[in-house]
Amino acid sequence: MADQVKLHGNWLSPFSSRVIWALKLKGIPYEYVEENVADKSALLLHYNPVYKKIPVLVHSGKPICESMIILDYIDETWPENPLLPSDPFERATARFWIKFIEDKSPVLWGVFLADGEDDREKARKATLEVLQTLEERAFGDEKFFGGDEINMVDLAYGMLARWMPVIEEVVGVKLLDPDMFPRLHALAENFRQAAVIRDNLPDHDQMVPLFKIRREQLLQIAGK
Amino acid sequence: MADQVKLHGNWLSPFSSRVIWALKLKGIPYEYVEENVADKSALLLHYNPVYKKIPVLVHSGKPICESMIILDYIDETWPENPLLPSDPFERATARFWIKFIEDKSPVLWGVFLADGEDDREKARKATLEVLQTLEERAFGDEKFFGGDEINMVDLAYGMLARWMPVIEEVVGVKLLDPDMFPRLHALAENFRQAAVIRDNLPDHDQMVPLFKIRREQLLQIAGK
Repeated sequence: MADQVKLHGNWLSPFSSRVIWALKLKGIPYEYVEENVADKSALLLHYNPVYKKIPVLVHSGKPICESMIILDYIDETWPENPLLPSDPFERATARFWIKFIEDKSPVLWGVFLADGEDDREKARKATLEVLQTLEERAFGDEKFFGGDEINMVDLAYGMLARWMPVIEEVVGVKLLDPDMFPRLHALAENFRQAAVIRDNLPDHDQMVPLFKIRREQLLQIAGK
Repeated sequence: MADQVKLHGNWLSPFSSRVIWALKLKGIPYEYVEENVADKSALLLHYNPVYKKIPVLVHSGKPICESMIILDYIDETWPENPLLPSDPFERATARFWIKFIEDKSPVLWGVFLADGEDDREKARKATLEVLQTLEERAFGDEKFFGGDEINMVDLAYGMLARWMPVIEEVVGVKLLDPDMFPRLHALAENFRQAAVIRDNLPDHDQMVPLFKIRREQLLQIAGK
């Protein structure tokens, strides 16, 4: 068990993917346990009794929960190829935008879960507002969200690069429009093309039919 | 401006108090700017255009927003008297419970904003559920939330020590019941008694009438 690294995840989850990307960027060997989110393993519930959610990283038998906390843990345990800048002010800025996307995550998934034209339109507008704030205020002219190299901010924003286009196709709305959000659109594209990410991204065409089914199930549960 | 530390805050805000406590624990001299949350200064809006909220720490002219991000910044800029454990796993555990209280903050304020007996009862039950999770799963038998010394976890949980008793009195419900939550109750008491905290806590009796007025205003705005 000493120094063994194990990840309980789900291949369709952007939160899981954040951890996979971090482990790959750091070159840390790990064992992967695919969890069925509809029927979670007893071990997962044991490791994460509060949220009962993936991802959970288990290192030398100790569980760490919540994707961004796992990323901090990884960065502090294996400091080579740092995932955050060394300057405290730059770190604070990175953390600010990481917290922003964490806080806005329900908004960004709003369109996926909205039913009926009114709700969908409301959710679409809320999403565009978040994207507008990002386009105007976050990120400079560097290649990646986090700067010239992929860092923790990019991993936090990975949802924009793959899950958002899937939502767009499943629901049939445009969100990350290249004309409205040229900078964000380019950043998402650069992220998708980066070697470690490209090789560890779930496939768009495989995701779409599964997210269609998932959406129908969720709308049924919500009684919509 | 070099190395000048300035805090834009509001004396009634637990988020502001977190930063004040951290600065005091570190022994960092700072200038304090009291903001009227109903009429924020142009400078505050300039420093925090995304959220337009206090607290904002300005260090050598650079603004840092969001209370827990400010605490990370303070801890990284002035490493003496560390606010987080040095072991990565213990840091992850601290961050887990910090994130928990951040996520649950709307629940913990739910009773304050609930109108009518049904809503209030629903909000009370939700709060007790959060407190139950904390009582059962978080924190050991140490004196403080964070261990034997006050650390970042305590500052995050400061709301329980002062604002929750104020909510209880304003609304007329018991939440942090010493019989139901003996451990949490003792931790809150120890926190209140710690020297730096005791000397930098807004006064309960001064707060109650102001929170009564604030509650009425907020309920009116909500059209209740």
